[in-house]
Amino acid sequence: RARGRKPWKLMIQIVKIAIITIQLVTFGLSNEMMVTFKDENLMAFRHLFLKGYKDHGLGTYVLYTKADIHFVADFLGIQNLTVGNLAYERVNGQFTPLSLCQEFYRNSSIDPGNETFDIDPHIDKDCISVYPGESTENNNLASPFNLSLDFKRLLSVNVYLTLKTINLQTVRHNELPDCYDFHTMSVTQTFTLIDYLLLWFDSVVILACFTSLLLCTRSVIKGVQLQFEFTSFFHSHYNKDVTWADRMEFVNGWYILIIVSDTLSITGSGLKIGIQTKFMTDYDVCSILLGTATMLVWVGVIRYLGFFKKYNILILTLRAAFPNVIRFCCCAVMIYLGYCFCGWIVLGPYHDKFRTLDRVTECLFSLINGDDMYATFLHMRDKSYMVWLFSRIYLYSFISLFIYMVLSLFIALITDTYETIKHHQQDKLPVSQLQA
Amino acid sequence: RARGRKPWKLMIQIVKIAIITIQLVTFGLSNEMMVTFKDENLMAFRHLFLKGYKDHGLGTYVLYTKADIHFVADFLGIQNLTVGNLAYERVNGQFTPLSLCQEFYRNSSIDPGNETFDIDPHIDKDCISVYPGESTENNNLASPFNLSLDFKRLLSVNVYLTLKTINLQTVRHNELPDCYDFHTMSVTQTFTLIDYLLLWFDSVVILACFTSLLLCTRSVIKGVQLQFEFTSFFHSHYNKDVTWADRMEFVNGWYILIIVSDTLSITGSGLKIGIQTKFMTDYDVCSILLGTATMLVWVGVIRYLGFFKKYNILILTLRAAFPNVIRFCCCAVMIYLGYCFCGWIVLGPYHDKFRTLDRVTECLFSLINGDDMYATFLHMRDKSYMVWLFSRIYLYSFISLFIYMVLSLFIALITDTYETIKHHQQDKLPVSQLQA
Amino acid sequence: RARGRKPWKLMIQIVKIAIITIQLVTFGLSNEMMVTFKDENLMAFRHLFLKGYKDHGLGTYVLYTKADIHFVADFLGIQNLTVGNLAYERVNGQFTPLSLCQEFYRNSSIDPGNETFDIDPHIDKDCISVYPGESTENNNLASPFNLSLDFKRLLSVNVYLTLKTINLQTVRHNELPDCYDFHTMSVTQTFTLIDYLLLWFDSVVILACFTSLLLCTRSVIKGVQLQFEFTSFFHSHYNKDVTWADRMEFVNGWYILIIVSDTLSITGSGLKIGIQTKFMTDYDVCSILLGTATMLVWVGVIRYLGFFKKYNILILTLRAAFPNVIRFCCCAVMIYLGYCFCGWIVLGPYHDKFRTLDRVTECLFSLINGDDMYATFLHMRDKSYMVWLFSRIYLYSFISLFIYMVLSLFIALITDTYETIKHHQQDKLPVSQLQA
Amino acid sequence: RARGRKPWKLMIQIVKIAIITIQLVTFGLSNEMMVTFKDENLMAFRHLFLKGYKDHGLGTYVLYTKADIHFVADFLGIQNLTVGNLAYERVNGQFTPLSLCQEFYRNSSIDPGNETFDIDPHIDKDCISVYPGESTENNNLASPFNLSLDFKRLLSVNVYLTLKTINLQTVRHNELPDCYDFHTMSVTQTFTLIDYLLLWFDSVVILACFTSLLLCTRSVIKGVQLQFEFTSFFHSHYNKDVTWADRMEFVNGWYILIIVSDTLSITGSGLKIGIQTKFMTDYDVCSILLGTATMLVWVGVIRYLGFFKKYNILILTLRAAFPNVIRFCCCAVMIYLGYCFCGWIVLGPYHDKFRTLDRVTECLFSLINGDDMYATFLHMRDKSYMVWLFSRIYLYSFISLFIYMVLSLFIALITDTYETIKHHQQDKLPVSQLQA
Repeated sequence: RARGRKPWKLMIQIVKIAIITIQLVTFGLSNEMMVTFKDENLMAFRHLFLKGYKDHGLGTYVLYTKADIHFVADFLGIQNLTVGNLAYERVNGQFTPLSLCQEFYRNSSIDPGNETFDIDPHIDKDCISVYPGESTENNNLASPFNLSLDFKRLLSVNVYLTLKTINLQTVRHNELPDCYDFHTMSVTQTFTLIDYLLLWFDSVVILACFTSLLLCTRSVIKGVQLQFEFTSFFHSHYNKDVTWADRMEFVNGWYILIIVSDTLSITGSGLKIGIQTKFMTDYDVCSILLGTATMLVWVGVIRYLGFFKKYNILILTLRAAFPNVIRFCCCAVMIYLGYCFCGWIVLGPYHDKFRTLDRVTECLFSLINGDDMYATFLHMRDKSYMVWLFSRIYLYSFISLFIYMVLSLFIALITDTYETIKHHQQDKLPVSQLQA
Repeated sequence: RARGRKPWKLMIQIVKIAIITIQLVTFGLSNEMMVTFKDENLMAFRHLFLKGYKDHGLGTYVLYTKADIHFVADFLGIQNLTVGNLAYERVNGQFTPLSLCQEFYRNSSIDPGNETFDIDPHIDKDCISVYPGESTENNNLASPFNLSLDFKRLLSVNVYLTLKTINLQTVRHNELPDCYDFHTMSVTQTFTLIDYLLLWFDSVVILACFTSLLLCTRSVIKGVQLQFEFTSFFHSHYNKDVTWADRMEFVNGWYILIIVSDTLSITGSGLKIGIQTKFMTDYDVCSILLGTATMLVWVGVIRYLGFFKKYNILILTLRAAFPNVIRFCCCAVMIYLGYCFCGWIVLGPYHDKFRTLDRVTECLFSLINGDDMYATFLHMRDKSYMVWLFSRIYLYSFISLFIYMVLSLFIALITDTYETIKHHQQDKLPVSQLQA
Repeated sequence: RARGRKPWKLMIQIVKIAIITIQLVTFGLSNEMMVTFKDENLMAFRHLFLKGYKDHGLGTYVLYTKADIHFVADFLGIQNLTVGNLAYERVNGQFTPLSLCQEFYRNSSIDPGNETFDIDPHIDKDCISVYPGESTENNNLASPFNLSLDFKRLLSVNVYLTLKTINLQTVRHNELPDCYDFHTMSVTQTFTLIDYLLLWFDSVVILACFTSLLLCTRSVIKGVQLQFEFTSFFHSHYNKDVTWADRMEFVNGWYILIIVSDTLSITGSGLKIGIQTKFMTDYDVCSILLGTATMLVWVGVIRYLGFFKKYNILILTLRAAFPNVIRFCCCAVMIYLGYCFCGWIVLGPYHDKFRTLDRVTECLFSLINGDDMYATFLHMRDKSYMVWLFSRIYLYSFISLFIYMVLSLFIALITDTYETIKHHQQDKLPVSQLQA
Repeated sequence: RARGRKPWKLMIQIVKIAIITIQLVTFGLSNEMMVTFKDENLMAFRHLFLKGYKDHGLGTYVLYTKADIHFVADFLGIQNLTVGNLAYERVNGQFTPLSLCQEFYRNSSIDPGNETFDIDPHIDKDCISVYPGESTENNNLASPFNLSLDFKRLLSVNVYLTLKTINLQTVRHNELPDCYDFHTMSVTQTFTLIDYLLLWFDSVVILACFTSLLLCTRSVIKGVQLQFEFTSFFHSHYNKDVTWADRMEFVNGWYILIIVSDTLSITGSGLKIGIQTKFMTDYDVCSILLGTATMLVWVGVIRYLGFFKKYNILILTLRAAFPNVIRFCCCAVMIYLGYCFCGWIVLGPYHDKFRTLDRVTECLFSLINGDDMYATFLHMRDKSYMVWLFSRIYLYSFISLFIYMVLSLFIALITDTYETIKHHQQDKLPVSQLQA
């Protein structure tokens, strides 16, 4: 019925897929270069500033004794140390200082030996600033550190410093270099280049998505109108209510998908223009919007593959099996949650993978899908015998139950649905030939 | 038959699930913070006290030569070294000393060169104590170590020390800080905070579980009574014995599950109150009881999902396939055990994963479920040719047999059961409509 | 129909498989020894020349500060340092020098503090040469390094050096030793040994493949001729066109496979002779050609296994299921690509595995097939909450969709095809017996 | 037919399983303790003697420059260094010296600069001995090393040393301590304890196995006799030959398994007695024999499970599917071998997992079964573009083909066989009831 209008919308969709993908790829490539540059610099900074920093696979930590807090000296000579182009930030003609801040409780007398303490839980923050210019002439570096860290009351020590650099490598790729501000732990970036071409392209994307959005909305509205007419007709003639399932038939799910995708794409492109014109810097939201839009657009391609009959049977199978799979997942999730809670509370203190509730969820999910099981077993080794025994029963039962029973049932579900759909299609075909 | 009474019990069950989960989560969160604190401190201690300690992925060891036993000096100055709040334990106004204990055979003359020895297998233990207060003034640290370790007879050297600290970070979360005693290797904790709210909540949990327990026990007892009546009736009228399978029909398995879960929950909550009132410290038992109870409660939710017909088919499939899966597991376990014994005895001396029998079990189980196989192959490389060949045949045959044959048969079992159940249900439905 | 001619061709094919495999194995074994030698030397060089070089699992980097560029001194004494047989290359009686080259922008004034820069993007390259002979007598090594590295404009510093060595270990295996030139980063090799036996063997391979090629081409040409005759006959008698599927029946796919394999083998063996006679050094192309040829030859063996009926059913199943699998893959690839783009743009800046587009593809493909999932989850931990949430939804949905739905559908496809083929074969057999 | 004689043999088999398992476990436990002791000592020695030794996950290497060969000095003071009980071996009242041996070509003039060499491929071996006793008084350690290593001709340097130690930890477990000789690289052990109890137990095992062997051999021989009689009877009455499949029916496969297992067990126990009486030391052969025997005995338990009908169907399925699985494996192995050869020759020089042919086999086998794929992809990254592209096509096609097609077909095979067997059994049962 609705197929007469397709070629026109189809063309818009194909163009949309192309330009959205191109937009995404250019965006991604420019970010890739930037992120690599930032990462390499951050790593170098960590090694320079954090004495004894090591990049282990499983987590990074540095252990300091009281005497080790004097690492700041390295900062003062950074221009001489590193090979890159780094400069201190200068605000109003003055260098931005390095701030060494400590947070501590306002007033406390703690005596762990007697197990007594008297703490005023208000937290004070005290900073000292070290200016790069001044400290080069006076060599006695110990002098600015009369900060007098009161370790008894101390909560945390943070070092803030601001550096600027220019990524010269980008010049080779015909881009103007970007300038970066490094705050030691969180890194923000400032784009100085307004690429007019990119802006124009983003506008094209917005336009295309808007057209697509209009067309699809019109189709959906028509469908809804038709549904209301049908309902009133059915109600007046047969005096029966139309079920929700029948009403839903009038609304094409693919149009809803396209509308959502277009909305995301328009918002994302708008944000991207905002980022490129230095108007805002919320990179994460922009990338999530653009990314999700692109994903939905690609998923939408399946709709056009469904026009071929042989492809259709596979898509139909997945769609038919979906409710059963979801239903079964509900049951499985109950057992899964039970295991999660139980594992968290019992094994949490003994195994890193069971420390927090979301880690347990991820760890168990990974175990079902064939993760490194032996390592999980291994680290549970040198515990009290009861915990050891519990962990064994827990892991063996969980894995056996989920891998052997649950996964097999998924396969049984899909296999059964596939055969049902296939027989259904074979039965229907002769009928349609009789109609012809 | 039993469905008329449900809404009342159902409500209690739902409330029970909610409060048990809340209890577990609060318990878990407070432990999480404590465990993180302990772990970080332990790691710091290890690095401070054990010279050359390294945190490898595969296991930790430290290698000492005779000259390295003098690490104790660091302990004496710990208050100056670390940043945290640490103090020596003080018993009766005196500092608890650091004890350096050696275990050795009482009397022995060993000459490995001549392969002769003469040992009195009685083990002596000798300790020296180092007091923190005294040794700070006298700097000659070698003097307390005239312990004269007789390396010929030595079995092990242990260092015991007791430190106290206060976790100040918890103050921010409106909890009173906990005090910890660190014994270098095993860490216990003492709760000083009696959270009356928590105690009250635990009592509510106990109450709810007790009510649920009573109701379910009554149902089970009624079922058993009905069964006895039925048996005697059947015996007197038809002069036939009722089979065990039929008798079991009268006892609802779900009630048994709820009873077990409630019993565990009540015991666990009781222990938890004991822990929080400093009455006892057996954290492991308490967490295992509470964790298992929560798991069973969540698993019990499946019962209510089973009231919907479409969910029911999946649960029925799993239940119907269960006996066959267990039966098949019996067969598979025989082959599995054969492989375990064989791998342990042959490959044990050459591969770390095959060193002990329980490791072999875990390693092979992990291999079936898609563990890192190449690493297992790799470490078997530079051995004698015969062992190398054996390990290859062993691993290839084991993996092929279990992954290709056994796992496939599981899927065949479940698929078949699913179809049987489905046909059974479709056949039964017309009949029930005829009845109506 | 075509089976009468087989025994003759079969013999050639069997001989071909044998000699091609032998050729490959000898080629591979000689390369294996060479590659091991090169690798060990390269690793030793890296440790010697790159100060602080560490061979991490996840990637190698070395961090230099400005003061560390003076590592060249080690080079000058290499003959005294290493245990192997190394010598400087000598061209026209003079030693080849070590070149220390820097690439930099021609003219630039960069001030990162003011965010201003003025760069001439033309890249200059400046090298200094250090001669091994001269610098041994003058010990002031700092003097040649008045290279004056201008770190502001610097892009990269490369060190080129040429060393020669002889692999004495090969003498034991009755081969003349090979000489290697090491350029520190890229390693090429020069074969000095012309093994006449190998050349003769390669010629035999070429001859055998050529014969096989001729025979198969003749068969294919005959098939095509027959097809044309059949088409014209069918067209003139029944006035109907023959479909492409029917036409394809005349061309045996296995012959095409053999022809492709023979062509690759002949070209590869030709290149191998070229390499061994020092005529060319393109090892990669040669190995790809020979490797692919060998693979195709082995795959071709399946054809002969297909003559047995019980084997045939399995091969037929795979062939019959193939189009459906490909069709289904098309649909799956659409969703897959959507996920790839989305993951790349959103998670790229936060996770190493999502940095570039081809890494995302590999990472997601590995996840489907049971890769280490927890590690992927783990590294996404300490990010902004929105990205963390997105990564969770992204990974859970992706894995569930692909492992539970897509992989199960593959199994359903194959199971269904197997049963179809089996029934087809059982139905056909009685008929063929009736014919007999 | 043969079931009447069972209870008698069954008892022997059950006793056999018990005692063989006990024998294996005691053997394994005593070896476990010994191996742990050896491993810890070896690791300590490596760290002591090999300067800069590091225990990486992926392989161990140590890099030496010419100056580092003087590590032997540590050996001379080993008794003062280590904590364990170590002594030099003393033969005829003299200490066994440490031997430092070098292997080199007899006569060579190599000039890598000119690419010329002139080698006499005969290998000489030259050793110097350092005696522990003498070198303690003369401190000039450089003097014994006028060994004059000629690095030009050098092939390898090995250090041999012999130490003795006594494992005192075993005394606690009521065993007499064992003495070990350490040869630095290969470790052998000498059992000094003749445990008469163990010997007696081994004899019991041999006796039980021998009885079982006799009984089973008798049964097999009877079966063969019956078969000959049947054949001649069939031949004389019906003038038809009996097929091999029918003849095989007379020989019970389980008896063959028991006979093989018994033979292995007797031989293994004999060897074990030999080892314990210091008669021989071939630990590997003994453990392989005992291990295989135990595995077969456990596998044999399945036979008795097969007497229950419900268990039988699963075993029958596996047995019926076995020939098809093997047949299909033949086809798959052809493609697999093709991939192995191709991957070895092309990717060998670039990836560690593809270096040797057996590694390729293991790596690909692991990949099919869900190994860490991303790591395999990752290390192929920074290669020439052509090799990179080839590796991508190679890996994607291999994994897709084997995981999606081959593994699915296995499942299809087993599912189909299961249904066939089930229908067969259901059809047969009514018939057997009619017979009754």
